[in-house]
Amino acid sequence: MKKIGVVGAGYWSQTHLRAWSQVEGATVQCLCDTDEAVLKERGAQFQIDHQHLYTELEELLQYEDIDAVDIVTKPDTHREIVEIVAKTGRDILCQKPFAQTVQEAQDILKTVERHRVRLMVTENWRWLEPFRQVKLHIQSQIIGNIQQIRFLDCKYATPTFAPDRAIPQPYFRTMPNLLFFEMGIHWLDVWRYLFGEPVSLYAAATRISPYVQGEDTGVVTLKHEGFFGHMDVSWASRRSMANQRDECPIEQMIVEGDRATLILYQDNRLVLRQTDGTERVLSNGYKFNMEESFSRLQRHFLSCLQDGTEFQTSGADNLKTLSLVFAVYESLRTNQVVDLN
Amino acid sequence: MKKIGVVGAGYWSQTHLRAWSQVEGATVQCLCDTDEAVLKERGAQFQIDHQHLYTELEELLQYEDIDAVDIVTKPDTHREIVEIVAKTGRDILCQKPFAQTVQEAQDILKTVERHRVRLMVTENWRWLEPFRQVKLHIQSQIIGNIQQIRFLDCKYATPTFAPDRAIPQPYFRTMPNLLFFEMGIHWLDVWRYLFGEPVSLYAAATRISPYVQGEDTGVVTLKHEGFFGHMDVSWASRRSMANQRDECPIEQMIVEGDRATLILYQDNRLVLRQTDGTERVLSNGYKFNMEESFSRLQRHFLSCLQDGTEFQTSGADNLKTLSLVFAVYESLRTNQVVDLN
Repeated sequence: MKKIGVVGAGYWSQTHLRAWSQVEGATVQCLCDTDEAVLKERGAQFQIDHQHLYTELEELLQYEDIDAVDIVTKPDTHREIVEIVAKTGRDILCQKPFAQTVQEAQDILKTVERHRVRLMVTENWRWLEPFRQVKLHIQSQIIGNIQQIRFLDCKYATPTFAPDRAIPQPYFRTMPNLLFFEMGIHWLDVWRYLFGEPVSLYAAATRISPYVQGEDTGVVTLKHEGFFGHMDVSWASRRSMANQRDECPIEQMIVEGDRATLILYQDNRLVLRQTDGTERVLSNGYKFNMEESFSRLQRHFLSCLQDGTEFQTSGADNLKTLSLVFAVYESLRTNQVVDLN
Repeated sequence: MKKIGVVGAGYWSQTHLRAWSQVEGATVQCLCDTDEAVLKERGAQFQIDHQHLYTELEELLQYEDIDAVDIVTKPDTHREIVEIVAKTGRDILCQKPFAQTVQEAQDILKTVERHRVRLMVTENWRWLEPFRQVKLHIQSQIIGNIQQIRFLDCKYATPTFAPDRAIPQPYFRTMPNLLFFEMGIHWLDVWRYLFGEPVSLYAAATRISPYVQGEDTGVVTLKHEGFFGHMDVSWASRRSMANQRDECPIEQMIVEGDRATLILYQDNRLVLRQTDGTERVLSNGYKFNMEESFSRLQRHFLSCLQDGTEFQTSGADNLKTLSLVFAVYESLRTNQVVDLN
């Protein structure tokens, strides 16, 4: 039984804790947060005894007999927390974005190497079943060679972030880089997982909501060897009530190949469109289940610790995703194409 | 009554001729084509007497008492034909693309200036009623200030251009620049008409069909002062039979403003989407009527000749549209952003 300490008891820790409870072979033994009220509330919610609740990380690491630490704190704390944890020899699962700059990411990777502990990034999107299904079908060659990709994810969120309204992650309001740093990192990791490494990238984005500081809508064009695609993503695009009722399912991902087109709808139906316009449902009913995706990545973490194999989302791998995120911001700043080679 | 000579009796001349027949105050008096069979067929189809059919343009210009010439030939013939017509003092309506390069466009403009005749480009898309409606609603400030634009026009055509199949415009197969030179010119003119002049542009495109030489799918990102948008356009994107039956209307244009969102569907319904997700149909039932749009632009041509006012799609204006088309190809060639200032 692997014993886990969770650092950070904020909003998302609930998903982590629920997910850990579904993972055989692991137990969350203790919890840490600098905010004592939040800490106690979360402890009560997940039946973690008060003697295993800590406001000081160092104390947790000193008194608890744990194998690994699950870091669920904000990005600007990761470097310091990783340093403190790594010194004590515990392996680390760290929420995304695991660093705020490429330099910081490299420093974190050096830290874990120096202390001979292992670090995996909590990047759950590639573990969501609908994307696993897309990957399987691409690998099966059912659509042939990829020719063009459309990745669409437009929601209406940031314009509802008025100051007097309680929102789960209020720090979204003041993040200078918002949509691509917070969500783009998921989309770009899924992109790499499904389509491999792009060779260049160009981005356009803007801020729509008056209640946030960072960008909340954008379009990114990615070129690969032999094909290209684009992301049309937004947290500030008005949605139709009809669409919200799923009357007209919205496409989330369209992968055109030389044999057929694979379409993932936002209701998670995966459809194969033939050249003659007929469509066949390949899978239906998979949920976009966040908690399940966390359980999967937690199992992957444990299994790789067990047999010594590489994490899918190791620090080194996730640095590639993070580099795409930073490339988006570089492109926005310079209005130039970023060469990724 | 203005008397018109039509040069070129190919596929699109039919739309021109039908459209002229709806225009009061003008009559098509004669027709010219180097292909005698096509010429006779078209003459019979539109009741143009054989004595007014010419295989030599110079003869038509010498023997016919006409006021203006409507050029409906391929782009590579425009420069020479404009030169020949302008010398005889007739005003000119010239099909798009009116030139193949910026240099050629400038030469053509100098030619008409030297001979003191007037030239308007036959750019009909901005005369289509659905786009007129979009323009009116943007001007009415019903959506407020524009924040983001999506222009979507994906069809499935080029993969059906197998050599053994008769298609209306077989030269599409060998055009080195296809989608943006042939259709992008319309989309980009509508874009300028509705949204003004972009400041930079970036394009990705590829060829999908084995039966054409030029690109047949692409994405263009356009940045303006204060907003941006993109075009997702294709002649080689598999369509759903369900969508072809209009069960799930496809969006053609989405203009997001700070007050509301304007959506033009491919079935030409124009809808206003409010922030709360409710939608109101602003107009319904306008047809994407090519012939009507030609009649409108022909009337505009006559009216501007009459009162001496500037054509909406004068050579000088259309050179701006053409420059955007060439900028697309420059961006594709260099994989760089093209600065349009």
